[in-house]
Amino acid sequence: MVTIQEAFSILKNNLPEPKVQKISLSKAKKHILAEDLIAPISMPPFRQSAMDGFALALHEGLEYEIVGEIKAGDTHQVALKAGQAVKIFTGAPVPDSATAVMQIEKATVSGNILTLEEHPNQEQNIRPVGEQNLKGDLALKKGTLLNAACIGFLAGLGFTEVNVFQKPKIGILVTGNELVQPGLPLEFGKIYESNSIMLDIALQEAFYDNNTIYRVNDDFENTKNKIAEALAENDVILISGGISVGDYDFVATALEALAVETLFYKVKQKPGKPLFAGKLKDKMIFALPGNPAASLTCLYVYVLPTLHMLSGRALEYGQTVPKKLTHDFTVSNARNQFLKAHIVDNEVTVLTHQNSSMLNTFSVSNGLMYVEDGGYQLAKGTAVEVYVI
Amino acid sequence: MVTIQEAFSILKNNLPEPKVQKISLSKAKKHILAEDLIAPISMPPFRQSAMDGFALALHEGLEYEIVGEIKAGDTHQVALKAGQAVKIFTGAPVPDSATAVMQIEKATVSGNILTLEEHPNQEQNIRPVGEQNLKGDLALKKGTLLNAACIGFLAGLGFTEVNVFQKPKIGILVTGNELVQPGLPLEFGKIYESNSIMLDIALQEAFYDNNTIYRVNDDFENTKNKIAEALAENDVILISGGISVGDYDFVATALEALAVETLFYKVKQKPGKPLFAGKLKDKMIFALPGNPAASLTCLYVYVLPTLHMLSGRALEYGQTVPKKLTHDFTVSNARNQFLKAHIVDNEVTVLTHQNSSMLNTFSVSNGLMYVEDGGYQLAKGTAVEVYVI
Repeated sequence: MVTIQEAFSILKNNLPEPKVQKISLSKAKKHILAEDLIAPISMPPFRQSAMDGFALALHEGLEYEIVGEIKAGDTHQVALKAGQAVKIFTGAPVPDSATAVMQIEKATVSGNILTLEEHPNQEQNIRPVGEQNLKGDLALKKGTLLNAACIGFLAGLGFTEVNVFQKPKIGILVTGNELVQPGLPLEFGKIYESNSIMLDIALQEAFYDNNTIYRVNDDFENTKNKIAEALAENDVILISGGISVGDYDFVATALEALAVETLFYKVKQKPGKPLFAGKLKDKMIFALPGNPAASLTCLYVYVLPTLHMLSGRALEYGQTVPKKLTHDFTVSNARNQFLKAHIVDNEVTVLTHQNSSMLNTFSVSNGLMYVEDGGYQLAKGTAVEVYVI
Repeated sequence: MVTIQEAFSILKNNLPEPKVQKISLSKAKKHILAEDLIAPISMPPFRQSAMDGFALALHEGLEYEIVGEIKAGDTHQVALKAGQAVKIFTGAPVPDSATAVMQIEKATVSGNILTLEEHPNQEQNIRPVGEQNLKGDLALKKGTLLNAACIGFLAGLGFTEVNVFQKPKIGILVTGNELVQPGLPLEFGKIYESNSIMLDIALQEAFYDNNTIYRVNDDFENTKNKIAEALAENDVILISGGISVGDYDFVATALEALAVETLFYKVKQKPGKPLFAGKLKDKMIFALPGNPAASLTCLYVYVLPTLHMLSGRALEYGQTVPKKLTHDFTVSNARNQFLKAHIVDNEVTVLTHQNSSMLNTFSVSNGLMYVEDGGYQLAKGTAVEVYVI
């Protein structure tokens, strides 16, 4: 049995190195950039009109001769002499010979004669080359989490693929002879298997979509073979149903037979005491408790941070935010606890139904309040640590 | 031109009714439940052992005769007489004839004789039928956002599909002759098209995955036909490139030809002034500004809340959170502004590069700070409104 802090530290010290993969920009969402990216072009790449109006070769007067037009996307240059203008549209290239753009609202046109209301300033309404970035600038640095704006920014610079840290492939193994698939009749003594879909969806909510579910019969050979298959096909294995000392639990013996190294088994926490973590070369194995709420708690506290770090994110285990309790709360437990809770703004409320088998209040939780072991009173307004989920 | 508040109110008054769809539980992530769900079974459905140990037909003494065993998943009943015990495993059904379970750690076994350390309490270590919920209880109510815990909870009750509010199918139309696909050479006067991938990814980050991109040539017939096609195939249309009064912009005339009703055109805001919203029967149409940062701002402020409400979420437009400025800031604008900003805990910092064409600082933004028009000073520490993105 280890403490929560020991478990965090053991995991941190045993994390495999993130792997790098070249990926299409359209698939790069929520990946971490694995390289510094240098802008291959300036943005804008040419002097660009910021308005619909007229590009002007400036002279003394307010009248100009209109000699043509340039639409956005036009690729031709126009050589203007002083006193000449072209009609121009937002986003269109301003001719080298023009030194200002007057917006259409401040000009009147009569035939090919343009009359301005006022003298324009030099370079007015012209976005200079490289206003956003110059060719050769650092566009995005290694370690950046690629969101929609990043991906749009890179596409605008002409990138189509980038090197990112690979997201782990995850195998979810389900064990337990008491489990029946939802939709089938439920015999006495059986319950519906719900952990695999719950874990899969929780992973998808965190943008881990490459998950495979394996169903294991409770005998040694099948357990061992399915774990071996899942290890071969994935980077991280979640075994649902956990490890127990029970005579009919073959997970522990199968892991041993497969030479999986135990990182820790049992954590002094509630829920989730039977949590197991192991390692085989660069593969991580977690055996999560069978009780759904305990399983989900361990996923949020241990597995998701592991997946994030394997995906190249710079973060730590045990990242909580301080919130204020909305009510008095009595702690009475020999283990540190994660309590299903609801956060609103800066406050947190502990929910009912904390039993590790119970999911119903987890469905309205957006946080897990962490409290140290012991018997003591937390008064309304006390600052507590909360894992945001 | 309408104000931001007018735009919100016009949209709210014109939202089509959310549609209901039956969906597999495995696809129901981040959908809103469209029905009250009644538990078809009690959970647990039978008296369940909470421990590995012995189920006991209680008597006076501390010694019991072991007459068998019950594993999790076993479906047989065992009739115990007072003084008899069966070995039992966590999750297994406790025989009707047993009234307590003693955990294995507090018992010693010699042959078929079990000796307890202490007298058990009635029903000790037995989860009663319906401890979590009884058959017929309200399991989840209409309006619940289905997260991993909800889906696990419903699977545990045997559900395989549920009625949810349908998420909108979204068509993204890209217009603009100046646009070149990333990966191709960039001629003078052209820029890379980046808004479609940016909008698609931003929608995916909010769990809208059913998006189709349509590329439009800048001529009237093609613009009209592509908009008609996108309207036929989707619930919401986002036109990137916006509407302008430009002689070569066919979006406005195409929308008119298709009898799209204008809800508003132009909003007194920066960025995003040229935002258009329209409606055709139960389809919503947004024309977003062509400048990437303006486009993304309008997506976060107007489009995502619209999609959420169409998907059955109970919320309002303009939902901000109060944050404290980390620095002095001078406001100087005739329009209300959304400023790219970075939130840390309870504080917010305005970022550089606020120009509507610039995405680079948007890539590190997690909020949009909202400030009213005018010329005035906001001191460090002032409470401001921020849209969290």
